[in-house]
Amino acid sequence: MDASQEETSTSPRLMRATGLEKGGIYRHFDSKQELAVDAFDHAWKISFDARFEGAGEISNTVDCLKQVVRNFRDRRAGLVPGGCPLLNTAIDYDDNNPPLRAKARQTLGSWLERLQSIAEEGQQRGELRSDVDCAKLATLIVSTLEGSLMVSRLQRKEEPLDSACRHLEEYLESMRP
Amino acid sequence: MDASQEETSTSPRLMRATGLEKGGIYRHFDSKQELAVDAFDHAWKISFDARFEGAGEISNTVDCLKQVVRNFRDRRAGLVPGGCPLLNTAIDYDDNNPPLRAKARQTLGSWLERLQSIAEEGQQRGELRSDVDCAKLATLIVSTLEGSLMVSRLQRKEEPLDSACRHLEEYLESMRP
Repeated sequence: MDASQEETSTSPRLMRATGLEKGGIYRHFDSKQELAVDAFDHAWKISFDARFEGAGEISNTVDCLKQVVRNFRDRRAGLVPGGCPLLNTAIDYDDNNPPLRAKARQTLGSWLERLQSIAEEGQQRGELRSDVDCAKLATLIVSTLEGSLMVSRLQRKEEPLDSACRHLEEYLESMRP
Repeated sequence: MDASQEETSTSPRLMRATGLEKGGIYRHFDSKQELAVDAFDHAWKISFDARFEGAGEISNTVDCLKQVVRNFRDRRAGLVPGGCPLLNTAIDYDDNNPPLRAKARQTLGSWLERLQSIAEEGQQRGELRSDVDCAKLATLIVSTLEGSLMVSRLQRKEEPLDSACRHLEEYLESMRP
Protein backbone atom coordinates (compact mmCIF):
# COMPACT_ATOMS: atom_id res chain seq x y z
CA MET A 1 0.00 0.00 0.00
CA ASP A 2 1.33 3.40 -0.96
CA ALA A 3 1.98 5.57 2.07
CA SER A 4 0.38 8.58 0.38
CA GLN A 5 -2.90 6.71 0.00
CA GLU A 6 -2.95 6.32 3.73
CA GLU A 7 -2.67 10.04 4.37
CA THR A 8 -6.02 10.41 6.08
CA SER A 9 -6.80 12.55 9.06
CA THR A 10 -5.88 9.68 11.34
CA SER A 11 -2.19 10.17 10.63
CA PRO A 12 -1.56 13.42 12.52
CA ARG A 13 -3.33 12.05 15.56
CA LEU A 14 -1.44 8.80 15.32
CA MET A 15 1.85 10.64 14.88
CA ARG A 16 1.03 12.81 17.84
CA ALA A 17 -0.04 9.86 19.97
CA THR A 18 3.00 7.79 19.13
CA GLY A 19 5.71 10.31 18.38
CA LEU A 20 6.55 8.42 15.16
CA GLU A 21 7.11 9.99 11.73
CA LYS A 22 4.63 9.12 9.02
CA GLY A 23 7.27 7.36 6.91
CA GLY A 24 8.08 5.11 9.82
CA ILE A 25 4.45 4.52 10.62
CA TYR A 26 3.31 3.16 7.28
CA ARG A 27 6.07 0.75 6.46
CA HIS A 28 5.43 -2.67 7.89
CA PHE A 29 1.79 -2.98 8.68
CA ASP A 30 -1.12 -4.71 7.01
CA SER A 31 -3.78 -2.48 8.47
CA LYS A 32 -4.03 0.90 10.09
CA GLN A 33 -5.54 -0.69 13.19
CA GLU A 34 -2.61 -3.07 13.59
CA LEU A 35 -0.18 -0.23 13.03
CA ALA A 36 -1.84 1.91 15.67
CA VAL A 37 -1.67 -0.90 18.22
CA ASP A 38 2.03 -1.42 17.57
CA ALA A 39 2.78 2.31 17.66
CA PHE A 40 0.92 2.63 20.93
CA ASP A 41 2.96 -0.26 22.36
CA HIS A 42 6.15 1.53 21.40
CA ALA A 43 5.06 4.85 22.89
CA TRP A 44 3.78 3.22 26.05
CA LYS A 45 6.99 1.30 26.67
CA ILE A 46 8.97 4.56 26.72
CA SER A 47 6.49 6.19 29.10
CA PHE A 48 6.20 3.19 31.39
CA ASP A 49 9.97 2.84 31.80
CA ALA A 50 10.29 6.56 32.59
CA ARG A 51 7.54 6.37 35.19
CA PHE A 52 9.22 3.64 37.21
CA GLU A 53 12.79 4.86 36.72
CA GLY A 54 14.71 4.73 39.98
CA ALA A 55 11.65 3.50 41.88
CA GLY A 56 12.95 -0.07 42.18
CA GLU A 57 15.95 1.14 44.15
CA ILE A 58 13.81 2.78 46.84
CA SER A 59 13.03 0.21 49.48
CA ASN A 60 10.32 2.05 51.43
CA THR A 61 6.91 1.71 49.78
CA VAL A 62 5.59 5.21 50.41
CA ASP A 63 8.86 6.75 49.19
CA CYS A 64 8.78 4.50 46.13
CA LEU A 65 5.20 5.49 45.21
CA LYS A 66 6.09 9.15 45.72
CA GLN A 67 8.97 8.70 43.29
CA VAL A 68 6.62 7.21 40.69
CA VAL A 69 4.33 10.23 41.11
CA ARG A 70 7.24 12.66 40.73
CA ASN A 71 8.52 10.75 37.70
CA PHE A 72 5.19 11.28 35.96
CA ARG A 73 5.67 15.01 36.42
CA ASP A 74 9.42 15.32 35.87
CA ARG A 75 10.57 12.65 33.42
CA ARG A 76 8.82 13.85 30.31
CA ALA A 77 11.86 14.79 28.22
CA GLY A 78 12.12 12.56 25.15
CA LEU A 79 8.63 11.18 25.69
CA VAL A 80 5.92 11.30 23.09
CA PRO A 81 4.81 14.88 22.48
CA GLY A 82 1.52 16.02 23.89
CA GLY A 83 1.41 13.99 27.05
CA CYS A 84 0.54 10.46 27.99
CA PRO A 85 -0.04 7.98 25.13
CA LEU A 86 -2.72 6.35 27.25
CA LEU A 87 -4.68 9.57 27.68
CA ASN A 88 -4.39 10.38 23.97
CA THR A 89 -5.45 6.91 22.96
CA ALA A 90 -8.28 6.61 25.45
CA ILE A 91 -9.96 9.72 24.12
CA ASP A 92 -8.98 9.68 20.44
CA TYR A 93 -9.59 6.09 19.56
CA ASP A 94 -12.07 4.67 21.99
CA ASP A 95 -14.79 4.08 19.43
CA ASN A 96 -12.88 3.77 16.16
CA ASN A 97 -10.37 1.02 16.74
CA PRO A 98 -11.51 -1.84 18.99
CA PRO A 99 -8.11 -3.65 19.02
CA LEU A 100 -6.37 -0.42 20.06
CA ARG A 101 -8.99 0.29 22.67
CA ALA A 102 -8.48 -3.23 24.05
CA LYS A 103 -4.74 -2.63 24.07
CA ALA A 104 -5.09 0.71 25.88
CA ARG A 105 -7.40 -0.91 28.42
CA GLN A 106 -4.93 -3.75 28.98
CA THR A 107 -2.10 -1.23 29.32
CA LEU A 108 -4.01 0.79 31.87
CA GLY A 109 -4.65 -2.49 33.70
CA SER A 110 -0.95 -3.34 33.78
CA TRP A 111 -0.04 0.12 35.06
CA LEU A 112 -2.65 -0.13 37.82
CA GLU A 113 -1.52 -3.67 38.72
CA ARG A 114 2.09 -2.58 39.02
CA LEU A 115 1.17 0.23 41.42
CA GLN A 116 -1.20 -2.02 43.33
CA SER A 117 1.42 -4.72 43.77
CA ILE A 118 4.00 -2.21 45.04
CA ALA A 119 1.41 -1.04 47.58
CA GLU A 120 0.38 -4.57 48.58
CA GLU A 121 3.95 -5.73 49.10
CA GLY A 122 4.54 -2.66 51.26
CA GLN A 123 1.43 -3.43 53.23
CA GLN A 124 2.70 -6.95 53.91
CA ARG A 125 5.98 -5.47 55.16
CA GLY A 126 4.06 -3.11 57.43
CA GLU A 127 5.08 0.02 55.53
CA LEU A 128 1.54 0.95 54.52
CA ARG A 129 -1.52 1.17 56.77
CA SER A 130 -3.43 -2.09 56.85
CA ASP A 131 -6.76 -0.36 56.09
CA VAL A 132 -5.56 1.01 52.72
CA ASP A 133 -7.36 -0.45 49.69
CA CYS A 134 -4.36 -0.88 47.38
CA ALA A 135 -6.41 -1.24 44.18
CA LYS A 136 -8.28 1.99 44.91
CA LEU A 137 -5.06 3.76 45.82
CA ALA A 138 -3.55 2.77 42.44
CA THR A 139 -6.65 3.98 40.58
CA LEU A 140 -6.65 7.29 42.43
CA ILE A 141 -2.97 7.90 41.65
CA VAL A 142 -3.46 7.24 37.93
CA SER A 143 -6.72 9.22 37.71
CA THR A 144 -5.25 12.25 39.47
CA LEU A 145 -2.08 12.26 37.36
CA GLU A 146 -3.87 11.81 34.04
CA GLY A 147 -6.51 14.42 34.82
CA SER A 148 -3.99 17.00 35.95
CA LEU A 149 -1.89 16.36 32.84
CA MET A 150 -4.97 17.07 30.73
CA VAL A 151 -5.61 20.33 32.60
CA SER A 152 -1.92 21.28 32.34
CA ARG A 153 -1.96 20.63 28.60
CA LEU A 154 -5.04 22.71 28.05
CA GLN A 155 -3.75 25.58 30.18
CA ARG A 156 -0.20 25.20 28.89
CA LYS A 157 1.23 25.52 32.36
CA GLU A 158 2.85 23.11 34.80
CA GLU A 159 0.99 24.18 37.92
CA PRO A 160 -2.00 21.76 37.75
CA LEU A 161 0.27 18.72 37.32
CA ASP A 162 2.62 19.99 40.00
CA SER A 163 -0.26 20.63 42.44
CA ALA A 164 -1.67 17.17 41.82
CA CYS A 165 1.73 15.61 42.52
CA ARG A 166 2.04 17.48 45.79
CA HIS A 167 -1.46 16.44 46.77
CA LEU A 168 -0.66 12.79 46.04
CA GLU A 169 2.62 13.02 47.92
CA GLU A 170 0.79 14.35 50.97
CA TYR A 171 -1.89 11.72 50.61
CA LEU A 172 0.73 8.97 50.36
CA GLU A 173 2.43 10.33 53.50
CA SER A 174 -0.87 9.81 55.32
CA MET A 175 -0.73 6.11 54.35
CA ARG A 176 2.22 5.41 56.64
CA PRO A 177 1.22 3.27 59.66
CA MET B 1 -22.37 23.91 1.35
CA ASP B 2 -23.70 20.40 0.85
CA ALA B 3 -23.63 18.44 4.08
CA SER B 4 -22.35 15.34 2.31
CA GLN B 5 -19.26 17.20 1.13
CA GLU B 6 -18.44 17.80 4.75
CA GLU B 7 -18.51 14.13 5.67
CA THR B 8 -14.89 13.86 6.67
CA SER B 9 -13.49 11.92 9.55
CA THR B 10 -13.93 14.91 11.80
CA SER B 11 -17.69 14.45 11.90
CA PRO B 12 -17.93 11.34 14.09
CA ARG B 13 -15.60 12.90 16.64
CA LEU B 14 -17.50 16.14 16.54
CA MET B 15 -20.81 14.32 16.86
CA ARG B 16 -19.44 12.35 19.77
CA ALA B 17 -18.00 15.42 21.43
CA THR B 18 -21.16 17.44 21.04
CA GLY B 19 -23.96 14.93 20.98
CA LEU B 20 -25.40 16.60 17.85
CA GLU B 21 -26.58 14.82 14.73
CA LYS B 22 -24.68 15.48 11.54
CA GLY B 23 -27.65 17.16 9.87
CA GLY B 24 -27.88 19.58 12.74
CA ILE B 25 -24.17 20.18 12.76
CA TYR B 26 -23.70 21.32 9.17
CA ARG B 27 -26.57 23.69 8.73
CA HIS B 28 -25.64 27.19 9.74
CA PHE B 29 -21.91 27.48 9.78
CA ASP B 30 -19.36 29.04 7.49
CA SER B 31 -16.47 26.90 8.60
CA LYS B 32 -15.92 23.65 10.37
CA GLN B 33 -13.88 25.44 13.02
CA GLU B 34 -16.69 27.86 13.80
CA LEU B 35 -19.17 25.01 13.89
CA ALA B 36 -17.03 23.04 16.32
CA VAL B 37 -16.75 26.03 18.65
CA ASP B 38 -20.51 26.52 18.66
CA ALA B 39 -21.20 22.82 19.15
CA PHE B 40 -18.78 22.72 22.02
CA ASP B 41 -20.53 25.71 23.61
CA HIS B 42 -23.84 23.90 23.39
CA ALA B 43 -22.47 20.67 24.90
CA TRP B 44 -20.65 22.51 27.64
CA LYS B 45 -23.69 24.49 28.70
CA ILE B 46 -25.61 21.26 29.34
CA SER B 47 -22.72 19.79 31.32
CA PHE B 48 -22.05 22.94 33.30
CA ASP B 49 -25.68 23.33 34.38
CA ALA B 50 -25.82 19.67 35.47
CA ARG B 51 -22.65 20.03 37.51
CA PHE B 52 -23.95 22.91 39.59
CA GLU B 53 -27.54 21.67 39.86
CA GLY B 54 -28.81 22.04 43.41
CA ALA B 55 -25.47 23.39 44.61
CA GLY B 56 -26.71 26.97 44.91
CA GLU B 57 -29.29 25.92 47.48
CA ILE B 58 -26.68 24.47 49.83
CA SER B 59 -25.45 27.20 52.10
CA ASN B 60 -22.42 25.49 53.64
CA THR B 61 -19.39 25.69 51.37
CA VAL B 62 -17.94 22.23 51.99
CA ASP B 63 -21.36 20.63 51.50
CA CYS B 64 -21.86 22.67 48.33
CA LEU B 65 -18.52 21.59 46.84
CA LYS B 66 -19.26 17.98 47.76
CA GLN B 67 -22.55 18.29 45.88
CA VAL B 68 -20.72 19.57 42.78
CA VAL B 69 -18.37 16.58 42.98
CA ARG B 70 -21.29 14.14 43.31
CA ASN B 71 -23.13 15.86 40.44
CA PHE B 72 -20.16 15.18 38.17
CA ARG B 73 -20.52 11.49 38.96
CA ASP B 74 -24.30 11.16 39.13
CA ARG B 75 -25.89 13.67 36.76
CA ARG B 76 -24.75 12.23 33.48
CA ALA B 77 -28.11 11.18 32.04
CA GLY B 78 -28.93 13.20 28.91
CA LEU B 79 -25.43 14.58 28.72
CA VAL B 80 -23.24 14.24 25.67
CA PRO B 81 -22.25 10.61 25.14
CA GLY B 82 -18.76 9.55 25.97
CA GLY B 83 -18.05 11.80 28.90
CA CYS B 84 -17.05 15.39 29.42
CA PRO B 85 -17.02 17.67 26.35
CA LEU B 86 -14.02 19.43 27.83
CA LEU B 87 -12.00 16.24 28.11
CA ASN B 88 -12.95 15.16 24.59
CA THR B 89 -12.13 18.55 23.15
CA ALA B 90 -8.90 19.00 25.06
CA ILE B 91 -7.48 15.79 23.66
CA ASP B 92 -9.11 15.56 20.24
CA TYR B 93 -8.68 19.07 19.01
CA ASP B 94 -5.81 20.64 20.84
CA ASP B 95 -3.61 21.04 17.79
CA ASN B 96 -6.08 21.14 14.91
CA ASN B 97 -8.46 23.95 15.75
CA PRO B 98 -6.94 26.95 17.55
CA PRO B 99 -10.28 28.78 18.09
CA LEU B 100 -11.80 25.65 19.64
CA ARG B 101 -8.74 25.10 21.77
CA ALA B 102 -8.99 28.71 22.97
CA LYS B 103 -12.67 28.16 23.72
CA ALA B 104 -11.97 24.95 25.67
CA ARG B 105 -9.26 26.71 27.61
CA GLN B 106 -11.58 29.60 28.41
CA THR B 107 -14.29 27.15 29.45
CA LEU B 108 -11.93 25.28 31.74
CA GLY B 109 -10.99 28.67 33.19
CA SER B 110 -14.62 29.56 33.89
CA TRP B 111 -15.26 26.19 35.55
CA LEU B 112 -12.19 26.63 37.75
CA GLU B 113 -13.15 30.22 38.60
CA ARG B 114 -16.64 29.20 39.64
CA LEU B 115 -15.27 26.54 42.01
CA GLN B 116 -12.60 28.89 43.30
CA SER B 117 -15.11 31.65 44.01
CA ILE B 118 -17.41 29.23 45.90
CA ALA B 119 -14.38 28.23 48.00
CA GLU B 120 -13.22 31.82 48.56
CA GLU B 121 -16.65 33.02 49.63
CA GLY B 122 -16.79 30.12 52.07
CA GLN B 123 -13.38 31.00 53.39
CA GLN B 124 -14.53 34.56 54.04
CA ARG B 125 -17.53 33.22 55.97
CA GLY B 126 -15.19 30.99 58.01
CA GLU B 127 -16.53 27.74 56.55
CA LEU B 128 -13.24 26.74 54.97
CA ARG B 129 -9.83 26.64 56.63
CA SER B 130 -7.94 29.89 56.13
CA ASP B 131 -4.80 28.09 54.91
CA VAL B 132 -6.60 26.51 51.93
CA ASP B 133 -5.39 27.75 48.52
CA CYS B 134 -8.76 28.02 46.77
CA ALA B 135 -7.34 28.16 43.24
CA LYS B 136 -5.34 24.98 43.82
CA LEU B 137 -8.34 23.29 45.42
CA ALA B 138 -10.43 24.06 42.33
CA THR B 139 -7.73 22.70 40.01
CA LEU B 140 -7.37 19.53 42.06
CA ILE B 141 -11.12 18.88 42.02
CA VAL B 142 -11.33 19.30 38.23
CA SER B 143 -8.15 17.27 37.56
CA THR B 144 -9.25 14.39 39.77
CA LEU B 145 -12.76 14.25 38.28
CA GLU B 146 -11.61 14.46 34.66
CA GLY B 147 -8.85 11.88 35.12
CA SER B 148 -11.10 9.41 36.87
CA LEU B 149 -13.75 9.85 34.17
CA MET B 150 -11.10 8.98 31.59
CA VAL B 151 -10.11 5.85 33.54
CA SER B 152 -13.77 4.90 34.02
CA ARG B 153 -14.43 5.30 30.30
CA LEU B 154 -11.48 3.15 29.35
CA GLN B 155 -12.33 0.44 31.86
CA ARG B 156 -16.08 0.75 31.22
CA LYS B 157 -16.83 0.71 34.92
CA GLU B 158 -18.00 3.27 37.43
CA GLU B 159 -15.60 2.42 40.21
CA PRO B 160 -12.71 4.79 39.34
CA LEU B 161 -15.02 7.80 39.13
CA ASP B 162 -16.84 6.74 42.28
CA SER B 163 -13.56 6.26 44.18
CA ALA B 164 -12.31 9.65 43.06
CA CYS B 165 -15.54 11.28 44.27
CA ARG B 166 -15.24 9.65 47.67
CA HIS B 167 -11.61 10.73 47.90
CA LEU B 168 -12.56 14.33 47.08
CA GLU B 169 -15.44 14.25 49.55
CA GLU B 170 -13.06 13.13 52.30
CA TYR B 171 -10.53 15.70 51.26
CA LEU B 172 -13.17 18.45 51.32
CA GLU B 173 -14.24 17.33 54.77
CA SER B 174 -10.67 17.94 55.94
CA MET B 175 -11.00 21.56 54.75
CA ARG B 176 -13.49 22.45 57.49
CA PRO B 177 -11.94 24.77 60.11
